[in-house]
Amino acid sequence: MKVPVDDYLQQVLGECAGDEGEVADYIPELAAADPDRLAVALCVADGTVYAAGDADVRFSIQSISKPFVYALALADRGQEAVLDRVGVEPSGDAFNEISLEEDTGRPRNPMINVGAITTHALVGGDECSEQDRCEQVRAGLSAFAGRELSVDEAVFASEMETADRNLALAHLVRSHDIIAGNAHETVRGYVRQCALLVDVRDLAVMAMTLAAAGRNPLTGEQVVPEAVCRQVLSVMATCGMYDAAGDWLTNVGIPAKSGVAGGIIGALPGQVGIGTFSPRLDRFGNSARGVNVCERLSNDMGLHLMSAPPLAVAAVRESGTVEYEGQTWLHAELQGPIRFAAGESVLRALAQLEPGPEPLALDLSRVTSVDDVGRRMLLEGIRRLTLDGHDVVLVDPRDVLPDPDAGDGIRPQVRTSSPYADA
Amino acid sequence: MKVPVDDYLQQVLGECAGDEGEVADYIPELAAADPDRLAVALCVADGTVYAAGDADVRFSIQSISKPFVYALALADRGQEAVLDRVGVEPSGDAFNEISLEEDTGRPRNPMINVGAITTHALVGGDECSEQDRCEQVRAGLSAFAGRELSVDEAVFASEMETADRNLALAHLVRSHDIIAGNAHETVRGYVRQCALLVDVRDLAVMAMTLAAAGRNPLTGEQVVPEAVCRQVLSVMATCGMYDAAGDWLTNVGIPAKSGVAGGIIGALPGQVGIGTFSPRLDRFGNSARGVNVCERLSNDMGLHLMSAPPLAVAAVRESGTVEYEGQTWLHAELQGPIRFAAGESVLRALAQLEPGPEPLALDLSRVTSVDDVGRRMLLEGIRRLTLDGHDVVLVDPRDVLPDPDAGDGIRPQVRTSSPYADA
Amino acid sequence: MKVPVDDYLQQVLGECAGDEGEVADYIPELAAADPDRLAVALCVADGTVYAAGDADVRFSIQSISKPFVYALALADRGQEAVLDRVGVEPSGDAFNEISLEEDTGRPRNPMINVGAITTHALVGGDECSEQDRCEQVRAGLSAFAGRELSVDEAVFASEMETADRNLALAHLVRSHDIIAGNAHETVRGYVRQCALLVDVRDLAVMAMTLAAAGRNPLTGEQVVPEAVCRQVLSVMATCGMYDAAGDWLTNVGIPAKSGVAGGIIGALPGQVGIGTFSPRLDRFGNSARGVNVCERLSNDMGLHLMSAPPLAVAAVRESGTVEYEGQTWLHAELQGPIRFAAGESVLRALAQLEPGPEPLALDLSRVTSVDDVGRRMLLEGIRRLTLDGHDVVLVDPRDVLPDPDAGDGIRPQVRTSSPYADA
Amino acid sequence: MKVPVDDYLQQVLGECAGDEGEVADYIPELAAADPDRLAVALCVADGTVYAAGDADVRFSIQSISKPFVYALALADRGQEAVLDRVGVEPSGDAFNEISLEEDTGRPRNPMINVGAITTHALVGGDECSEQDRCEQVRAGLSAFAGRELSVDEAVFASEMETADRNLALAHLVRSHDIIAGNAHETVRGYVRQCALLVDVRDLAVMAMTLAAAGRNPLTGEQVVPEAVCRQVLSVMATCGMYDAAGDWLTNVGIPAKSGVAGGIIGALPGQVGIGTFSPRLDRFGNSARGVNVCERLSNDMGLHLMSAPPLAVAAVRESGTVEYEGQTWLHAELQGPIRFAAGESVLRALAQLEPGPEPLALDLSRVTSVDDVGRRMLLEGIRRLTLDGHDVVLVDPRDVLPDPDAGDGIRPQVRTSSPYADA
Repeated sequence: MKVPVDDYLQQVLGECAGDEGEVADYIPELAAADPDRLAVALCVADGTVYAAGDADVRFSIQSISKPFVYALALADRGQEAVLDRVGVEPSGDAFNEISLEEDTGRPRNPMINVGAITTHALVGGDECSEQDRCEQVRAGLSAFAGRELSVDEAVFASEMETADRNLALAHLVRSHDIIAGNAHETVRGYVRQCALLVDVRDLAVMAMTLAAAGRNPLTGEQVVPEAVCRQVLSVMATCGMYDAAGDWLTNVGIPAKSGVAGGIIGALPGQVGIGTFSPRLDRFGNSARGVNVCERLSNDMGLHLMSAPPLAVAAVRESGTVEYEGQTWLHAELQGPIRFAAGESVLRALAQLEPGPEPLALDLSRVTSVDDVGRRMLLEGIRRLTLDGHDVVLVDPRDVLPDPDAGDGIRPQVRTSSPYADA
Repeated sequence: MKVPVDDYLQQVLGECAGDEGEVADYIPELAAADPDRLAVALCVADGTVYAAGDADVRFSIQSISKPFVYALALADRGQEAVLDRVGVEPSGDAFNEISLEEDTGRPRNPMINVGAITTHALVGGDECSEQDRCEQVRAGLSAFAGRELSVDEAVFASEMETADRNLALAHLVRSHDIIAGNAHETVRGYVRQCALLVDVRDLAVMAMTLAAAGRNPLTGEQVVPEAVCRQVLSVMATCGMYDAAGDWLTNVGIPAKSGVAGGIIGALPGQVGIGTFSPRLDRFGNSARGVNVCERLSNDMGLHLMSAPPLAVAAVRESGTVEYEGQTWLHAELQGPIRFAAGESVLRALAQLEPGPEPLALDLSRVTSVDDVGRRMLLEGIRRLTLDGHDVVLVDPRDVLPDPDAGDGIRPQVRTSSPYADA
Repeated sequence: MKVPVDDYLQQVLGECAGDEGEVADYIPELAAADPDRLAVALCVADGTVYAAGDADVRFSIQSISKPFVYALALADRGQEAVLDRVGVEPSGDAFNEISLEEDTGRPRNPMINVGAITTHALVGGDECSEQDRCEQVRAGLSAFAGRELSVDEAVFASEMETADRNLALAHLVRSHDIIAGNAHETVRGYVRQCALLVDVRDLAVMAMTLAAAGRNPLTGEQVVPEAVCRQVLSVMATCGMYDAAGDWLTNVGIPAKSGVAGGIIGALPGQVGIGTFSPRLDRFGNSARGVNVCERLSNDMGLHLMSAPPLAVAAVRESGTVEYEGQTWLHAELQGPIRFAAGESVLRALAQLEPGPEPLALDLSRVTSVDDVGRRMLLEGIRRLTLDGHDVVLVDPRDVLPDPDAGDGIRPQVRTSSPYADA
Repeated sequence: MKVPVDDYLQQVLGECAGDEGEVADYIPELAAADPDRLAVALCVADGTVYAAGDADVRFSIQSISKPFVYALALADRGQEAVLDRVGVEPSGDAFNEISLEEDTGRPRNPMINVGAITTHALVGGDECSEQDRCEQVRAGLSAFAGRELSVDEAVFASEMETADRNLALAHLVRSHDIIAGNAHETVRGYVRQCALLVDVRDLAVMAMTLAAAGRNPLTGEQVVPEAVCRQVLSVMATCGMYDAAGDWLTNVGIPAKSGVAGGIIGALPGQVGIGTFSPRLDRFGNSARGVNVCERLSNDMGLHLMSAPPLAVAAVRESGTVEYEGQTWLHAELQGPIRFAAGESVLRALAQLEPGPEPLALDLSRVTSVDDVGRRMLLEGIRRLTLDGHDVVLVDPRDVLPDPDAGDGIRPQVRTSSPYADA
């Protein structure tokens, strides 16, 4: 059989091919774009990329660079230092608005131009040269994409000719001591950043890297820390699509960002990265058909932040006692992923056990994953059971709970198979 | 052992017991609240409730009623009719601000008073009497809580004495033809709604009902449809905590709502419902210690919308061929929950199989759950494999994929155990 | 000859009879107005009224009542008490906007509805009954008009049916403790005030009363104090014509106020009161043709606040010495009106005189008027000259400087003709 | 005697010498100003200047240059062309705010920096070099002051070091195609303009030039046309004192403008020009003591736009018939200034005359001035009387009504004395 995802994407493109909206025309390079181009790509957790339509067409990344450069700045400077200079509140404004906080002069968020210019200036530190900063940005975005990106010099040159508004914004944040460097150099760097060339596959991989807690699913590189991705995705959720945060969040429910050349990315944590491309823009400046595609994907595939996962079957698959070679074993077999909710139900089940000398076999062989909180919960359970008198034996053939140090000097024995065979 | 969640909650309360903020004092009943009260409750998917602190103290629900009455209005009137009258955009304003859209007069969102008054008026239809609407609201919130709630008549009477602002808001939306009924009766009903008495356990259950796609985890009642919950949670994410949507979403990442009596709810889809209580309010009007407790819970337990679940182990646990009684079986054993991402990887694995006459055993016995999208993906795979010539046999002992109709008249055989035993 | 002002007004109406704009239609009584009605009246300082067009048609005064009721409130309560409750800043908003100051809840100015409702409530004091306040307002506006005005009960009843917005505004200011009484009664009183019937002659006289420092030019009654008129005219200058204070002030330069029934008043201090009527309204809610008429009058007749009066000829017509019956007289003959500027030039001329025993004849027979400042300046000059040794004789046949007490016990002799005849 | 104005000003300074406010400190040159300096000057219509306090201290003109450069731009480009680029609406904002109209990008008014930068760029046309424009501005302001002004180069250099905000504003208006030239050159020119050195006498003369319809009272030069002054004064009335237009207009009632170095000008049409200086600024950025001085002058001297001139005595001093040498003359003697109101009363009196062959002597020898409207009214009266059969003889010894062409070929005979002597 053929994987039906390809067919599905093809079908979505067919159904979203309306002709509303207008191609951006403030520079010749954007005005010359073929308005009928349409492409989509999905990247899933293991790096598989599905694509349909004009997936080979490259276009300038424009404002879609903003969340990634924000991520680089957060990784470089730390959350606090960046928050001192750029806020995280939706402004309800268009992309090029001057939205500064009244008292501090901080740009309201990093997704509007004034915030993105500030964010660009934060990469690499105040002493960084323009050239070094540009290279760091290019290299950083390339790491997100998993291939070396390059600048479209014609787009860059053309944008610099109509850069007055961005120059105004740069001087403005400089007047508030939000950025330190030369305003013109900063704008030049920012405009280069926006002129990086990408296609929808790149966008899907970049988005999936954010959705995968910072690890590029193609290269395996940890591009930025997990906490950075959480911050970036949160800001995309409320500030990414301009002017109508609530509308996007209720209808689509995927953290997203659009660019004036017609691209959009969507990133649903842990699940999928999306890239779309279609040059016609709606009145908010978002790709009109790209928005439709995202809505379709969200609705068809249940890809919405607020979609409750279906209630899992019990994380504790079986528990009870087993007689084996004259020994009574307490037995608990867990299954599925262990995060907070599953951890809680495991602990609750373990709490039913009476204190006593019987050994306990805690079988993790059907557990698919354990996150940090699940890990701490399991270890705390192991600690308490040990203090209750039980010897705990972990059955963990795939090492889903490595280094099981429960504190107080307590470490369970670890085995790759059950101590009582298939008794 | 004792379940460590109780100890943990106790510890969190101890660490969040600062004394910043002031008790609301615009009516005597709120001013008389003991400022040192502090309580927290968690409700998990199966309805288990953990609580600590002053969990038995009841207080008026106040603005926390807003998301639930919004849910009732959505369920009664449908999303479109409600959107015609109340928007979903964050206003960046305080709770009692007049935030109407300029052209339409629509309140900006249902979490500010003017939107909540409108929402209240929508429950039960335009012809509904004041008394009937109040009873519908009381009964609806009781269904969310899983017990019969009642009004604090002293709070109600006192609030009516200082209701000028709410009366202004009601007349205002009436002047825009947003609500139809008598302004004074509408405000009276809204004030009764806000005077319903709850404790933190109620709040945790109510929040978990939203987080569990509308099904009350205690009573099993489907209080409102899943789509309604998605809408309500989305709006809570951006409009619930007043004035600083971005700050809350980045730092805490849990859709939430606060009330002036000191309560807060948090609802993380599929995972947990939280209720906190502490009467001292910060400058935004949110419970100061309640906010701290929510931040602690989010940070400690990884409870954040943007926390990517750890990358699951392959959804396809094993695949290959099995020789059994002279027959070559194709064999694929799935595991964990099957939503979009897992479904995609399953389809990709199945696409490796060559067309041919061999039967395929698709073993779901380690699958913990299948959502609607996962279900459609599995059925599409089954359909294509059948068209490729394979007979598909589903091994589904716990009925995780009921009624497996793949379309085109194709239905796989379903068994509760493997066709080839443990060959 | 016929006074050409009538012909001129007729000509202006002929040239301003365009048909742009729409009649207000939110109540049947206004919607039924004949859209082609057009009238203008001018009232000059001595009470002469010129009128042209449909000058006998009566219409409801609507918002034109606002400056006059503001004047009544100022006269009743004093400037400070009124300023505590209503500001004087232009809001840049439409007439029915909610423009309250953020911290205090004060309406921004008395020309928008929320400020006018507040102003109405201030007339007669907090203890005044609704009926008494309405009668005070009716009587006060009648005193401005110089005839007894009465309410159009059909307009009143109809407006009360769509009073939700005004009720909202009244509850709102009540919620800020800006007004004390019952919100519904206040709105009822305010709506009665707006339903008083007037014609353009009434409006011209009312405006001239403001322009004449509060003295009705027909009846001679001092309706309100001069300081009140200065305050009211200042507020009309910036807040009277909604949405475009600067445009009106630069183009027309006459303090003005419009009403939704089609009336406009203009009041140029000391010079003229204007009333116009034409029911079609422009997009700001001002009478479209009325605005044109005002522009014409301003441009044609130099009626603009910022028109510098032409430089007067010297206030000192002649000065020198006169020999008469063996006595050398110092002689100074003044002319024209004596305000600050003329007073200054007189004092400067007098300062040329050497100290000495010669008597001084200060001849005021050609002086047309002396204001308070001019009076103080002349008296100070007389005082100083007397101290220099001169006996000052005032020649003041028309008593333009009554009671010439110069302080320090100094009073010049006053005569009705020159002490030295026409020597 | 000594002119008491000097004593009065001295007294005002003594009573306004509080120490509230802070000296501007964003550049060293301003921070170094002696905070206790205090000066005031008045200039009256004939160019006499009174001064008190530190009247010889020079300081940079700063924002007080704005109305004068606005006047130069209006004179150069015409009102329409300037209005296309800079509005006239109060912004309610601080001096350095970004107040652009939403759709057009026009600065809201020429008194805020963004509007003043635009205004500067309009002087001399788009092709004008930076150097030429600076010289035109310097020369123009010198013409207002009646002496050659020069730039404080230290202030200029220092301001350029912190010019980021102004650079932002210049790039911003350039991005809206409001200005054409190079943004940096424009800011440099604007900063030079602000660094011109003046003292309070200069300010008083500059203000009086505006108040005297554009004619410098010292030099007699017509610096800009009268219509320009009307526009500039109107804008100063609502936009000159930042943040509180209504407060200033009601309390002081004098069109004014302040500068950050501590200067203030006030200009009351036809009456007086005021200059004050005191470096301590209030929270709006206006000189704290300067504001107090202006309030005192306004209140003490009745200098308020809305102060109605006292009702003049009849413009027609005497009328009747005179028998002289067998001829019956109609006789009318006018007095005082003839503007609209006086003209109206003259026409009304003349309208009492029956048609007939008697000659009419219209005696203007006591008339102090005739403005354009008064002139047109008198000539229309003469025309109508002539058509009624009367021969009109003008007695106009001081030529207050030159070139008395009444249209239709009608010109009255003009004499310098009465045709019937002193009969």
